[in-house]
Amino acid sequence: MDVFKLAEMIRYQPDKMAKVDVASSPRLICGLNCFEPGQVQKVHAHKGADKLYYVVEGSGEFSVGGEKRTLSAGEVLYVPEGLEHGVVNTSGARLAVLIVITPNLHS
Amino acid sequence: MDVFKLAEMIRYQPDKMAKVDVASSPRLICGLNCFEPGQVQKVHAHKGADKLYYVVEGSGEFSVGGEKRTLSAGEVLYVPEGLEHGVVNTSGARLAVLIVITPNLHS
Repeated sequence: MDVFKLAEMIRYQPDKMAKVDVASSPRLICGLNCFEPGQVQKVHAHKGADKLYYVVEGSGEFSVGGEKRTLSAGEVLYVPEGLEHGVVNTSGARLAVLIVITPNLHS
Repeated sequence: MDVFKLAEMIRYQPDKMAKVDVASSPRLICGLNCFEPGQVQKVHAHKGADKLYYVVEGSGEFSVGGEKRTLSAGEVLYVPEGLEHGVVNTSGARLAVLIVITPNLHS
């Protein structure tokens, strides 16, 4: 049974956002994106794949299609395929985000 | 921007598990499944679609392919397509679970 305790999997690195794999198949990619204060996920888009963000800990500024909003632990953001999106940890504390991308275009 | 504060969306009903829609597209269904103590999601399977559970609050017994395990807030369960799975709130408190099914076979 594929169970993942997120609190034990979160890790940070000093130079850039850390990525942690959780699960993947042809239908999805699930992972953690972990940001020290100031770290960034550059604005990008996934043609043909939707993305969900769930904020596990901390808060930061999320942008979708040029709109920006600060999200905190417990909030979900849905990004439809093709829309540009990115993250900046504008807070003074660590930010960990669970992401799901569907389908997995790299499988 | 499609932002969802899960804590404000969770709702329970006395007769059976409550379902709350979060987001959907041809590529995914995202929602909340909310269980009062003793409530059940019967064992079922999605042919051709994977499922992710993320426990938002509480704990309960999850089964996948006949194996059972108690999961608590902060844990993720990955269910590959075709495998039977279900949930029983075996705890004495409320259980809320975020679910993602991919792709959306009903779109």
